[in-house]
Amino acid sequence: MSEYQIIGTSAQRIDTLSKVTGDALFSADLSFPRMLVGKILRSPHPHARILNIDTSRARSLPGVKAVVVGKDTPGEKWGVFPYTRDQQMLQCEKVRYVGDEVAALAAVDEDTAVEALNLIRVEYEPLLAVFDPEAAMADDAPLIHEDHPGNINIHVPIEVGNVEAGFAESVLVVEDTFRAAEDSYFMAEPYAVTARFDPSGNLEIWCPNAGPHMKSKPLANALRLPLNKVKVRKIAIGGAFGGRSEVCPADFIAAFLSMKAKRPVKIVYTREENSTATRQGHALTAHIKTGVNQKGEVLAREMTTYLDGGAYSSTGPIAVSVPFLCMEQAYRIPNVRFNGYRIYTNKPIRGMIRIHGRAFSCGVDQQLDRIGRELGIDPVEMRLRNARVAGETTPTGSKVFSCGLKECIEKAAEKIGWKDAFGKLPPNHGIGIGVNSVQTGFPLGIRGGSQAVVKFNEDGGATLISGVADNGQGNDTMLVQIASEELGIPMNDIELISADTEVTPLDPGSYSMVSTYAGGQAVMLAARDAREQLFELAVEQLEANVRDLRAKDRRVFVEGSPDKGIPIHKLVRLSLLQGKPVLGQGAFAPKIDNRREWVSNPRGQLSQAFSFGATMALVRVDPETGQVTPLKVVAAQDCGFALNPRQVEIQFESGVAMGGQGGMLTEECIWSGGNLMNPDQLEYKVPLAPDMPPIDTIIVQSVDPGGPYGAKEAGMSIAMSAAQAYMSAICNATGVWYKTFPLTPERIVEGLEQRYRKKK
Amino acid sequence: MSEYQIIGTSAQRIDTLSKVTGDALFSADLSFPRMLVGKILRSPHPHARILNIDTSRARSLPGVKAVVVGKDTPGEKWGVFPYTRDQQMLQCEKVRYVGDEVAALAAVDEDTAVEALNLIRVEYEPLLAVFDPEAAMADDAPLIHEDHPGNINIHVPIEVGNVEAGFAESVLVVEDTFRAAEDSYFMAEPYAVTARFDPSGNLEIWCPNAGPHMKSKPLANALRLPLNKVKVRKIAIGGAFGGRSEVCPADFIAAFLSMKAKRPVKIVYTREENSTATRQGHALTAHIKTGVNQKGEVLAREMTTYLDGGAYSSTGPIAVSVPFLCMEQAYRIPNVRFNGYRIYTNKPIRGMIRIHGRAFSCGVDQQLDRIGRELGIDPVEMRLRNARVAGETTPTGSKVFSCGLKECIEKAAEKIGWKDAFGKLPPNHGIGIGVNSVQTGFPLGIRGGSQAVVKFNEDGGATLISGVADNGQGNDTMLVQIASEELGIPMNDIELISADTEVTPLDPGSYSMVSTYAGGQAVMLAARDAREQLFELAVEQLEANVRDLRAKDRRVFVEGSPDKGIPIHKLVRLSLLQGKPVLGQGAFAPKIDNRREWVSNPRGQLSQAFSFGATMALVRVDPETGQVTPLKVVAAQDCGFALNPRQVEIQFESGVAMGGQGGMLTEECIWSGGNLMNPDQLEYKVPLAPDMPPIDTIIVQSVDPGGPYGAKEAGMSIAMSAAQAYMSAICNATGVWYKTFPLTPERIVEGLEQRYRKKK
Repeated sequence: MSEYQIIGTSAQRIDTLSKVTGDALFSADLSFPRMLVGKILRSPHPHARILNIDTSRARSLPGVKAVVVGKDTPGEKWGVFPYTRDQQMLQCEKVRYVGDEVAALAAVDEDTAVEALNLIRVEYEPLLAVFDPEAAMADDAPLIHEDHPGNINIHVPIEVGNVEAGFAESVLVVEDTFRAAEDSYFMAEPYAVTARFDPSGNLEIWCPNAGPHMKSKPLANALRLPLNKVKVRKIAIGGAFGGRSEVCPADFIAAFLSMKAKRPVKIVYTREENSTATRQGHALTAHIKTGVNQKGEVLAREMTTYLDGGAYSSTGPIAVSVPFLCMEQAYRIPNVRFNGYRIYTNKPIRGMIRIHGRAFSCGVDQQLDRIGRELGIDPVEMRLRNARVAGETTPTGSKVFSCGLKECIEKAAEKIGWKDAFGKLPPNHGIGIGVNSVQTGFPLGIRGGSQAVVKFNEDGGATLISGVADNGQGNDTMLVQIASEELGIPMNDIELISADTEVTPLDPGSYSMVSTYAGGQAVMLAARDAREQLFELAVEQLEANVRDLRAKDRRVFVEGSPDKGIPIHKLVRLSLLQGKPVLGQGAFAPKIDNRREWVSNPRGQLSQAFSFGATMALVRVDPETGQVTPLKVVAAQDCGFALNPRQVEIQFESGVAMGGQGGMLTEECIWSGGNLMNPDQLEYKVPLAPDMPPIDTIIVQSVDPGGPYGAKEAGMSIAMSAAQAYMSAICNATGVWYKTFPLTPERIVEGLEQRYRKKK
Repeated sequence: MSEYQIIGTSAQRIDTLSKVTGDALFSADLSFPRMLVGKILRSPHPHARILNIDTSRARSLPGVKAVVVGKDTPGEKWGVFPYTRDQQMLQCEKVRYVGDEVAALAAVDEDTAVEALNLIRVEYEPLLAVFDPEAAMADDAPLIHEDHPGNINIHVPIEVGNVEAGFAESVLVVEDTFRAAEDSYFMAEPYAVTARFDPSGNLEIWCPNAGPHMKSKPLANALRLPLNKVKVRKIAIGGAFGGRSEVCPADFIAAFLSMKAKRPVKIVYTREENSTATRQGHALTAHIKTGVNQKGEVLAREMTTYLDGGAYSSTGPIAVSVPFLCMEQAYRIPNVRFNGYRIYTNKPIRGMIRIHGRAFSCGVDQQLDRIGRELGIDPVEMRLRNARVAGETTPTGSKVFSCGLKECIEKAAEKIGWKDAFGKLPPNHGIGIGVNSVQTGFPLGIRGGSQAVVKFNEDGGATLISGVADNGQGNDTMLVQIASEELGIPMNDIELISADTEVTPLDPGSYSMVSTYAGGQAVMLAARDAREQLFELAVEQLEANVRDLRAKDRRVFVEGSPDKGIPIHKLVRLSLLQGKPVLGQGAFAPKIDNRREWVSNPRGQLSQAFSFGATMALVRVDPETGQVTPLKVVAAQDCGFALNPRQVEIQFESGVAMGGQGGMLTEECIWSGGNLMNPDQLEYKVPLAPDMPPIDTIIVQSVDPGGPYGAKEAGMSIAMSAAQAYMSAICNATGVWYKTFPLTPERIVEGLEQRYRKKK
């Protein structure tokens, strides 16, 4: 029997009712009296100089309440890091992609706004544009940002050990180039932002976000407002997946228009804007060279990656590093060299996505499969021999305190029946494996820690205050579940206030997979602090020793003498009468190396904990059509401790859908010059429920020494390793080592045809 | 030079901008999508049995979304005390006044709601009604509440010392009966409530209130909701004056209709409802007998008061006691007997008002004037000889720790030129004095204390969280001013979150004059707690002793070495980086006797501090018309310490307007049976700005040992003593001892005529 009452159970989500009744409001649902419709005029050119913007006709159209261009704004440039501040919220001199923000306006209704947009005249001088990283690096390529020669936005070099010696020692060295196109987040929710600026100087703003505090600071900077006047409010959010982490031009523009018009302004993105004017995943090319000894243990690996960054930096430095970091966590590599490049092109901005670098991780795993085949080692055994174990340190210096990777691999293999399947499947069937690891929080400086407050009502109910955001993954439920466990009152007795920059303390939100680890832990500590205060009051009332007290079922009682107790609401009333109301507070920041750099020589503890996952997939490939039918998927992840097993499983399942089914089979952006050719759901194919195979989930609990109850990140290791498992299974089914992803029917058929031609 | 930087200065109010721009929203201004209009059907009878209510036609009118009657509700009865629970939110069996709530409905617009109201058929059996306390006490009077014989709602008996012996010792005993009609609050804002109940079970409600937490608990009880689901939200409030302290049927009805209709519901009272269906001040009859020695020192006083309570208890027990308590605080009385009665009548409900018991306090002061005249003692001297001084204990056992009453009297007398005026004025001119005292908080049990939280933003700005409400008196500014003083950052750097039951800790609000004493003190302590945390961080940075540190101008520095300092935002960032964010908390509850009863044998510390005030007025009376022209008023009050002198003065000025100019000259309710004949502004005459005389204000600062910086209640002693001063001056001008108030031109002329007839 578990030592816990509430955590560790699959408690119902606290947002279920509001979501199913439609009561939950998303940013696009908001409506305020006198609210205006905001619209953004975007560049039709991939690269051009702005010669003149004439807004006079738009301004004089009745119903238009504000028109703004770049020179009206304070002009602050945005970037995640000081050295990546390259994006203005409204462009003044140049546009750098088809969709770049040029002007914006607010009008009384949508029709007027659209009509006014058409009345703005912009004179451009078109410039040579470049759409391919390789072409962009050429000497004669046009420069997208003049201060970045070769259009190199970011270069992350990492070298540990002696790579040349490692290859020299190797019995087998393989070397390949892998490629993947851009992927899109395709959240259920369109991007929408509503801003309300009042005469007293308060900006209230509602928008999808991974953490409201990550929006408020850059907004305050860009608008030149003090932080306590920028109030990012809680709102239901329809998915983030890494795509709601930064401030975006629409946030700034809605706020700025509201300041100008002195009325609330709402901007809702069209489907096309959602696909082109928010950031999306990178296209990536990865050169990978791996050397192993006779036992298949990796001795050296060299990797060079090129990310097509699009027009601006966004979260580039992180996006360049993360695929490598995940792999250095998952697999032991004594000698390693990595050079990650992010290249500017005249395409929409790319950023982090839940499945970082498909081409990279799939490449690493495919090489292990190939090496295994050459050396006669089963793919599962290949992974086990190279798998990270607890107590080790990654090449860049992160100690791994907990690691259940081998258990994940073994349990998944058993569940899917690997031994009976691998090599013994009918024709056109394949089985594959993918392994990955994810950080549970990485350096965010002052914004990496979380703080929570618990206050009691006189009837014994409590209010919990936390800055954590819930993007759909169930964070709100997780926080309440933890507080319920610690306070000894039912979840229903706890009201959560979260994700509001005014009310809640600074918090990274669900950024960098840290919400449970930091946010959950802060809540645990705050609730314990409140409980200790209750216990102090109870000690006198019950004449008991504080160490013997327990809180459960709305009572504090003496362990072993459950009759000797007192209802919590009585203790609360006592505290109020004494003028010392119960108010618990807790704070937690992951113990990581905040001086660790992203770009130059990254060394030090990256994350206090890492999750590890293994996904295995069984597929059938139709050799005629190239159609892949996944038959079964097993997803096993070490999440430390499952605070809510059902929610953890849902994360695993959604990871398979996003990383495997979508990420490896169908999802890719198609371009014509700088124009995205498949911006909508009909052409960009996101998997639907009927597409999904049966999924078995396995929760491995390594109980991390630093996490709340041992918990760490849940689900993202699956999203990443699912792509690898699908790839591995398809290669196994077809006998073709595919190197360009996703594996659409066309690519599969083409690969089979090439092999057929070769054989002939 | 003051030791303080921010407090003690007349800082601009933080709500000025939103009020002057119209940006501030009051409850009636709110609008939500799909919001319904709520209306209440009221009894046309002063006393009747409800035989049947037929709502079928109203229900079937298109656009009507909910209709409710008493039997639909949980039926919980409301009362401030367990023994005064006599009011249902919707009546089931009987109606007890013209205006009593019988049914309610919500419809899509006002017209539909009014039409539907007319379609409800109620069968009544009219009962004998009674409108006068004396008649109500008669043996054969109809009983309004069957369990209250003689219609006696409340009886408060108090006896201290030996009253008979006191009278026996006295050289002079006077005995009179004084009367005053009901007075009305006439807030600038009409009563309005907007309620929004969502499918997840949250009730959000906006309504005028003196403290949101005083609304939430009874609402939670009446609606059978847990407290953390009842969210009384902050909203601008247009005046309270004691009239916004309780939950009222409209709050309950709006919430209940919203639950039924599953849509937001707004109820806005008509002017008539404002005057009849909210509680208002009591009519009072006071028999007062006072005995003095040769020096004019009071030896004994016996008082019996009858309050016309109307149909329900409301805050009756408190309203009965407070006039007596104020007087026992202001004047020494060694032997005293008090019997206070509140009588049920079939009239609208009466409650506490800022000028408690005009007839009572005016009676006490008039007797001192008369006794003085008999004994040849100047009225000012009469007051000085009987005035309370610090260190004394009131008859019912309250220690008075600070008291600047004598200073108030002396300074006011000097300012108005008493010596040169009294007895030396031209004909028809008069000068008068009134003295009173008010509690700074009285027993509210668990709801008497306040708690505050201060959190810092990374840019060094702070957010202050407090449950105190601002009804227009400037509490919000007071709280921010205190936090600014303690934190060493400008007021503009502090964002206040207040008066929201979800976010803020339990608080009495501005109830019982305690907001500065408890709420201000909690903020002071929370800010000091936060500052200590900053100092701890600074100690290391500055290598200084914590005792030498000061916070000022956004910096922490070493006293005497102002260059040795560090900006506060740097300390905040440091705290965030260390994972221990600065979060200050403070709590304060007045040290009073919470076991002290209101009704039976009240003894013990009533309040931790008392304010004392003296008002003097110079008037001219036109003997032909009875018109009173106040020429000058001096208002002096000991408020302990003036946190914001200008705001304190405004409280004094408004006290003169409400208590003196309105309360003694024009304001009274006029009845025909149970029907109020002057419910609107044309007939109930509230003074306007041009009516006001020049007012000199004198702030006396006794620096209370228990108050924040020595502060205590400000303004209410003036509101009360102003009535007395006006009365005293008019009697002085006319030579008539008026005993029925207010002193309208008709009464003044009548008094002069009677004296003229007598003389003849």
